[in-house]
Amino acid sequence: MSAAVDEQRLASELESLAAISSEPAPAVTRVVFTDADRRARGYIESLCLDAGLLVREDAVGNTFARWTGTEPDLPAVATGSHVDAIPNAGRFDGTVGVLGGLEAIRALRHAGIQPRRSIELVIFASEEPTRFGIGCLGSRFLSGALDAAAGDRLIDGEGRSLNAVRTSAGVTGPLSSVRLSPQAYAAFVELHIEQGPLLERHHHDIGVVTAIAAPASVRIIVEGEGGHAGAMLMPDRHDAFLAAAEIALAVEAAAKSTGAIDTVGTSGVCEVFPGAVNSVPSRARLELDVRDIDEARRDKVLTRISAACEEVAARRGVSVRIEPINADPPAQSASEIVEAIVHACDGRGLSYERMVSRAYHDALFMSRVAPMAMIFIPCRGGVSHRPDEYASPAAIANGTAVLADVLAHLSAVP
Amino acid sequence: MSAAVDEQRLASELESLAAISSEPAPAVTRVVFTDADRRARGYIESLCLDAGLLVREDAVGNTFARWTGTEPDLPAVATGSHVDAIPNAGRFDGTVGVLGGLEAIRALRHAGIQPRRSIELVIFASEEPTRFGIGCLGSRFLSGALDAAAGDRLIDGEGRSLNAVRTSAGVTGPLSSVRLSPQAYAAFVELHIEQGPLLERHHHDIGVVTAIAAPASVRIIVEGEGGHAGAMLMPDRHDAFLAAAEIALAVEAAAKSTGAIDTVGTSGVCEVFPGAVNSVPSRARLELDVRDIDEARRDKVLTRISAACEEVAARRGVSVRIEPINADPPAQSASEIVEAIVHACDGRGLSYERMVSRAYHDALFMSRVAPMAMIFIPCRGGVSHRPDEYASPAAIANGTAVLADVLAHLSAVP
Repeated sequence: MSAAVDEQRLASELESLAAISSEPAPAVTRVVFTDADRRARGYIESLCLDAGLLVREDAVGNTFARWTGTEPDLPAVATGSHVDAIPNAGRFDGTVGVLGGLEAIRALRHAGIQPRRSIELVIFASEEPTRFGIGCLGSRFLSGALDAAAGDRLIDGEGRSLNAVRTSAGVTGPLSSVRLSPQAYAAFVELHIEQGPLLERHHHDIGVVTAIAAPASVRIIVEGEGGHAGAMLMPDRHDAFLAAAEIALAVEAAAKSTGAIDTVGTSGVCEVFPGAVNSVPSRARLELDVRDIDEARRDKVLTRISAACEEVAARRGVSVRIEPINADPPAQSASEIVEAIVHACDGRGLSYERMVSRAYHDALFMSRVAPMAMIFIPCRGGVSHRPDEYASPAAIANGTAVLADVLAHLSAVP
Repeated sequence: MSAAVDEQRLASELESLAAISSEPAPAVTRVVFTDADRRARGYIESLCLDAGLLVREDAVGNTFARWTGTEPDLPAVATGSHVDAIPNAGRFDGTVGVLGGLEAIRALRHAGIQPRRSIELVIFASEEPTRFGIGCLGSRFLSGALDAAAGDRLIDGEGRSLNAVRTSAGVTGPLSSVRLSPQAYAAFVELHIEQGPLLERHHHDIGVVTAIAAPASVRIIVEGEGGHAGAMLMPDRHDAFLAAAEIALAVEAAAKSTGAIDTVGTSGVCEVFPGAVNSVPSRARLELDVRDIDEARRDKVLTRISAACEEVAARRGVSVRIEPINADPPAQSASEIVEAIVHACDGRGLSYERMVSRAYHDALFMSRVAPMAMIFIPCRGGVSHRPDEYASPAAIANGTAVLADVLAHLSAVP
């Protein structure tokens, strides 16, 4: 009795979901708690209700859709991902794990399977760090990596707290209620596009994720001296943007200095103040992202960046403040789930490779409260976080079928 | 019969004007055609009407307030400056020349002077380039440096044309009507804070401006390749922001390379797209400002910057597009006005020095349609375009008294 995935339905639902965006197609932009994010969530919830699942939302905006098992008191098996999207993103990051998770459940039901353990689809709140500067908000709260005080501490670009923003969006209740009990889930498995080039390059259908890299992000505030671009002479300047430019180049150099292919460093945000063509910049703000599968090596890169900040500050007569946003340890997948994925690939005749996730995911935090693994599918050119991000309907269906088999297996374990 | 300037009234009017801002004090922000800019203009107009002047506004939003002379058919003598302000600016840039010009006229009337030529105060539209990327909009149209077609061509950051924006603000009529007849003005003299440190350093009351430096501004668009900050490996990257960072540092190096104190180069605007901490920047936009009193030397700096752009583009595998915004020739002051200023300083017992304006002003464009000169007053630390910009009431009154004497002299010339 093998579950059959409806490839067409899944592709069409992904297309409908992509149309819910605060920027015109092909761009997808769904920042957490904006109208587009809430409408996307509403769309998923209606599909879950149609599928006969029990739907609830928690106080940080995580949505849970449960297919109750024959032994509902046993810890459930969970799957899921996110629907929020960074500005000008694509349509497959996160959404494949959400709609694929739902399709896996529908396929299992259609095949007449009766799970012993409940199977729960989780749509995590704010996997992307766009709004509050920190990613995986939903799964951090679920795993206890963030406590309720963060509701007032986390501030968006407009100076509004997470608590203020979620309340405006109609998401209420104490954040202290979000944390999962240690018995909530027996396992968590997340389906996702690879966001890297390896599966496509190697012509493999499935990536079996054995570990998730350790991400760190840092905010850097440079304060210099502003003035009139015509009247302030070059020797008198303490230009905050030029200091930030040197720091961004130092981030690149530090990431390359390890010689390891797994080290990456990015300055994805640079804001210049006051931002007028005829004004010497008085302040600049960078946000950096540094990752590695080796935590110690990653931290060495961060140390090099700090040293570069000090050198630039001294030489240019500006002040440089470094504010850590997050620095999370890497996560190892659970071998029993990895083996279940491998077994499912074999059963479906799909080729696979074991690999590391260099992008981080809600699975990174879910690993703190349940055995975890991830299923990757290839995406074209390894491209992600861009409107031309693409995964084929067949690749998505392959990943969904493997997920269905893994959920069936894990939910049957007594 | 010497005109007496009311220092207190002038200081208090400058304070009232500073309170009209779209950002809280001490910052002054008045971007052209925003509510703050329009209200500031309304405030000045009401003061001009109170002073018995004839007020009119042209199709680009320049305001004219005329004191009719005894021979109204002679070309008038004009003075004036601007009230728009870049984001987070101070309260003296431009406003001293507007309210000082008005006070000079009131002082002359109060002293019982009857000018032969009419004296006209001009409040120029959009001296600052903030909204449309090009400064001195009002005086460019007045002097014919911009033609009516620019009304559709100039686009603000939200994609709205100058024509659309001015119409929304209630400023209507054909832009072709703005250009001044060659007989409109016999002379133009502008009072302004120095925006540089020299007068304060040398303990001089007045700067007599003999030339205005040649400004050029350029937009640079870098297109690279975006992607996920975790998954896109360092050797595969074509990071648009890192290319822009190198270009900004090359602008600094090119400006310093001339060895001349009068060469300045600034990257005042840097925007990074998509601007998310976990996204490799796919696009960056810089806006540069390069100035020199020597036009050929300035153009050599621009050539060096172009060469740097090419080198960076080739090395990083990104495309770099350079869009000139403006490149204006320097202007020489008219010797008869310079001498009138010197004479007025001597008459008032004020110390002065002849100097070059490295900042540009509406006077740069007015020099194309009338003999021109400028009167500078010291400002604290040479600071401008910042909330802590400061000129003392006494310094402002000194400049205003000199302006009054110069206007009296020029308006009496048959």
